[in-house]
Amino acid sequence: MADPLTDSEQLAWRTFIESSWALHTHLEDELRAQTGLSMNDYHVMVVLSEAPDRRLRMGELAKSLVFSPSRITYQISSMVKRGLVSKQPCPEDGRGQEAVLTDEGMAALEAAAPLHLITVRDSFIDHLDPDELAVVHRVFARIRKA
Amino acid sequence: MADPLTDSEQLAWRTFIESSWALHTHLEDELRAQTGLSMNDYHVMVVLSEAPDRRLRMGELAKSLVFSPSRITYQISSMVKRGLVSKQPCPEDGRGQEAVLTDEGMAALEAAAPLHLITVRDSFIDHLDPDELAVVHRVFARIRKA
Repeated sequence: MADPLTDSEQLAWRTFIESSWALHTHLEDELRAQTGLSMNDYHVMVVLSEAPDRRLRMGELAKSLVFSPSRITYQISSMVKRGLVSKQPCPEDGRGQEAVLTDEGMAALEAAAPLHLITVRDSFIDHLDPDELAVVHRVFARIRKA
Repeated sequence: MADPLTDSEQLAWRTFIESSWALHTHLEDELRAQTGLSMNDYHVMVVLSEAPDRRLRMGELAKSLVFSPSRITYQISSMVKRGLVSKQPCPEDGRGQEAVLTDEGMAALEAAAPLHLITVRDSFIDHLDPDELAVVHRVFARIRKA
């Protein structure tokens, strides 16, 4: 049996989970309405756009996004169908597969980024002072590793 | 045009959004695997279980969970079908509708709570010290209001 949450843990948890859930829903709804992209699409494109030659092994992409193997496979298949990403054999070993951001994907990301930025600022970043942002950064880096 | 994120804002945002997205997915996957309930089901049941007579107007429930009117309608319809909640006219004015947690819903919540608690502790609460938890509480209370 896990220890029950203390009153302050309970209050903090409830506030965090309900508020962050609503934030995710808001980010997803806004991005879809403005660009037709999901948040998962967007994050895949951001990570690929920063990789050398805009390409990454599927496993590295999954790790970077904290996705399970089945989730990344599903996500990339959906993006391949829409022309945002292509799947190519790894140049080095020919067996593994890499996801590559297409020119169309890069253009979609560049069109979406300034719109998404406004939502991110309005719904999150601009409400935190630098110390709070540093705590959030530290805490969620730790959670992610765990 | 919104100002671009500074490097530290960008790093903190990316860490937060990817890590919290993965946390939500993990919580949802674990809860579904253990109990068949979604996180939305669970939060509706928690809020109703704490209300007088386990009943709340649809609008109050939506507000408490930061849900849109269409999302709460869809969510409650799904729970009514599964017998977890019933919909009844408000006793006071007879026009509005209230969501009521059924005995079956209460039993499902009581069975799920200790399992969900373990996931919440393991994936989040036990990784934060009290000061960090207080910052997270304060920040997400502010975000929610905005």
